[in-house]
Amino acid sequence: MMTLDEARSQLTTANHILAREGVLDAFGHVSMRHPSNPARYLLARSRSPELIESSDILEFTLDSQPVAPVTGFLYGERVIHGCIYQARPDVHAICHHHSRAMMPFCISGIPLRPVDHLGATMGAVIPFWDQRDEFGDTNMIVARSEEGQSLARTLGPHWVVLMRRHGATVVGISMEEMVFRSVFSCRNAELQREAHALGGVTELTPAEIEKAGAFNLEPRPIARAWEYWTMRLRQARAA
Amino acid sequence: MMTLDEARSQLTTANHILAREGVLDAFGHVSMRHPSNPARYLLARSRSPELIESSDILEFTLDSQPVAPVTGFLYGERVIHGCIYQARPDVHAICHHHSRAMMPFCISGIPLRPVDHLGATMGAVIPFWDQRDEFGDTNMIVARSEEGQSLARTLGPHWVVLMRRHGATVVGISMEEMVFRSVFSCRNAELQREAHALGGVTELTPAEIEKAGAFNLEPRPIARAWEYWTMRLRQARAA
Amino acid sequence: MMTLDEARSQLTTANHILAREGVLDAFGHVSMRHPSNPARYLLARSRSPELIESSDILEFTLDSQPVAPVTGFLYGERVIHGCIYQARPDVHAICHHHSRAMMPFCISGIPLRPVDHLGATMGAVIPFWDQRDEFGDTNMIVARSEEGQSLARTLGPHWVVLMRRHGATVVGISMEEMVFRSVFSCRNAELQREAHALGGVTELTPAEIEKAGAFNLEPRPIARAWEYWTMRLRQARAA
Amino acid sequence: MMTLDEARSQLTTANHILAREGVLDAFGHVSMRHPSNPARYLLARSRSPELIESSDILEFTLDSQPVAPVTGFLYGERVIHGCIYQARPDVHAICHHHSRAMMPFCISGIPLRPVDHLGATMGAVIPFWDQRDEFGDTNMIVARSEEGQSLARTLGPHWVVLMRRHGATVVGISMEEMVFRSVFSCRNAELQREAHALGGVTELTPAEIEKAGAFNLEPRPIARAWEYWTMRLRQARAA
Repeated sequence: MMTLDEARSQLTTANHILAREGVLDAFGHVSMRHPSNPARYLLARSRSPELIESSDILEFTLDSQPVAPVTGFLYGERVIHGCIYQARPDVHAICHHHSRAMMPFCISGIPLRPVDHLGATMGAVIPFWDQRDEFGDTNMIVARSEEGQSLARTLGPHWVVLMRRHGATVVGISMEEMVFRSVFSCRNAELQREAHALGGVTELTPAEIEKAGAFNLEPRPIARAWEYWTMRLRQARAA
Repeated sequence: MMTLDEARSQLTTANHILAREGVLDAFGHVSMRHPSNPARYLLARSRSPELIESSDILEFTLDSQPVAPVTGFLYGERVIHGCIYQARPDVHAICHHHSRAMMPFCISGIPLRPVDHLGATMGAVIPFWDQRDEFGDTNMIVARSEEGQSLARTLGPHWVVLMRRHGATVVGISMEEMVFRSVFSCRNAELQREAHALGGVTELTPAEIEKAGAFNLEPRPIARAWEYWTMRLRQARAA
Repeated sequence: MMTLDEARSQLTTANHILAREGVLDAFGHVSMRHPSNPARYLLARSRSPELIESSDILEFTLDSQPVAPVTGFLYGERVIHGCIYQARPDVHAICHHHSRAMMPFCISGIPLRPVDHLGATMGAVIPFWDQRDEFGDTNMIVARSEEGQSLARTLGPHWVVLMRRHGATVVGISMEEMVFRSVFSCRNAELQREAHALGGVTELTPAEIEKAGAFNLEPRPIARAWEYWTMRLRQARAA
Repeated sequence: MMTLDEARSQLTTANHILAREGVLDAFGHVSMRHPSNPARYLLARSRSPELIESSDILEFTLDSQPVAPVTGFLYGERVIHGCIYQARPDVHAICHHHSRAMMPFCISGIPLRPVDHLGATMGAVIPFWDQRDEFGDTNMIVARSEEGQSLARTLGPHWVVLMRRHGATVVGISMEEMVFRSVFSCRNAELQREAHALGGVTELTPAEIEKAGAFNLEPRPIARAWEYWTMRLRQARAA
């Protein structure tokens, strides 16, 4: 089992990878379930993902309360993480983002679909959540428990949920899986948008989604991509 | 209250951030109201924003006349700044730009609309100014007081004004707010364009625009983004 | 004739060029026929192309079995290489990729066509292979000999084959030729997509494709581009 | 008057700027008229523009013959330069390129039009040349005098000529003017394409094109942009 220090380090790296690969920018956040206490999760204090250091990482209850007293700002939308960890014991890592790749789907309402073997890691169903349906006109920030629970209900047993005019939330059974899915779901979105403009899209069959998704979440592809992203990170930071 | 030296330094940083984040290129300019004399504003001599240093920053009356004698070129369009500071006592920072993100809206005349919670910081009304309406065929440069006043009238009490076939002008009650709005209005424009190509756009309701705009202009989001942009700047300059 | 060490070094450089120029990312792979034994080919162990070093390069039979015992992962799709080297004695270098440029054609099924003189190096016929036609629902990975042979049959005597919802495979009579074709076929794809969105595409005549393709595969253009790509690589790696 | 050494240095810088700003890549070339002998022009030996050094620059007659014996390759299309210098005594600098920005217009045949004040520097008429009209099926390379003369005739008294399925050629009365026009005509092309996709384009009136074009080719805007591009170049090369 991972130590807490190793967990903090992995979560820091995941923040940096997802920023470097264009999933996160000034906003968005990444969490992981505590490695030894499933009733806790780890999340940084309010800071842009690219800038996060291990020392920024705090521990929260699943009610999204900090375990130790905190000075300074916390992410306003941390209930997204707490509510999903409560609803989904199988989930160990979560990313909420507003990536440029995904946003056109969030804004247009055109369904995001798996269009290649790597996009198949999103799964066959990608639910769409509109905060307005249940909560009317808000500031569009998922800040209250009811809002986080509503989002978690819409996510259900799936892996990616789009949030209307806001962004996306991606989950995984491990950090490496979640990072892989986050990067390749953004890439799938870009490809689907460009294929759509070119003349239409043929999506994968349900059986292809299942088989290709399972294949790409095996250790070999995930390890290859993780090595690639950490190396790019190291090069960018050394420059 | 900020000293004049601090103001010069902040204005220099804002020029660099807006260049680094793709709002400004060889052209465009950023100003701020003088920190202790509201009848003056600060603006660099004619130079590309990325290259500006504190020593390039000059002081102007609201008639856009330099307070001290100047050698070398001044920005030809500085009346944009002077006329808006005259008309809008609440405004303390202004950016005029021709960003690639915004230009397709300036050229097509398709209305720019807030399509996500960050774009809500533009406000519900984004006026559109066509220099030709009042001044006929010109060189399209806003160089005369009448032109600057016309633009300020079209801006009215709003925060972003598009200029047909030319660019955009963005204002804020502080430098940080104006920079935030400039970056995220460009991003909103990109997202709206891509959502439009994908299949249409659902815009925010008026109440969502008001609530989400207000939320994102609070100290926490603005501080998070400002830290991110200044860090990126430092890294780019250290490389 | 090239030594084995020189071949390993050239193959490593080709991996890096194709990563640097946006053809390859975390996935995709490049091979070359063994310089002195045409019944063998060289391919790296399973690793992202940008990270490959000469010591990662292994030797395979045309049945895609490693000649020496191996520890660690191999590329799951190496039969693509073996089956094409078997079917095409004239081919000495192969790249399989999922480039962003090519994927919209793989997903939409819109035919890729030579639209400029550099794209003419793809040749007049660009076959389209759908794994599902012969093999039904799979994990979309070309892992079995029958699948590799089917792809090689569809490629036939041509130079680029698109793989539905998956990617592309590009071949050449030399490494330099194959790299040139890979880069400029991606560029052709981008240009065709953008011209299509702008208002349509006029493609080259068959005679233009033949003449322009032949001209651009002569030593002078290939040498100029190879010098350019290796220099860019050196600069990127020195930074 | 510029010395020959200064001319070589300026031409080298122009090559680097146009590569850095995305106008040139592995291919394309830039020339200038000899500073003291208008019957000669300067052009590099066959090499990618980003790599050119002063020592690569050679002298040619207006018949595109090297003045001194040469070893190694020359650009195959240098008649473009010679034929235009013959036909246009007012022209002192020329760039031939296949930029990604311009190519969609060359391929689709949709007319390129000035859509903003900076694009107005292209002038009101942008001719379109199709090598096939006069020469039938060729390798699409402008290698013979008749081809270069035909292109120069189509250019006529204008500043930018598009070449069907091939690229563009841009001319200027000085190097700085030509570089400015090359960069901003590419940018105009990008903006026109994106505005077109968004919902249509309103172009400038003839009088606006004339006035805005003249304004932007005055010393102040050209000097500002030139300082910006050379500074970016210095930073990129220092990194």
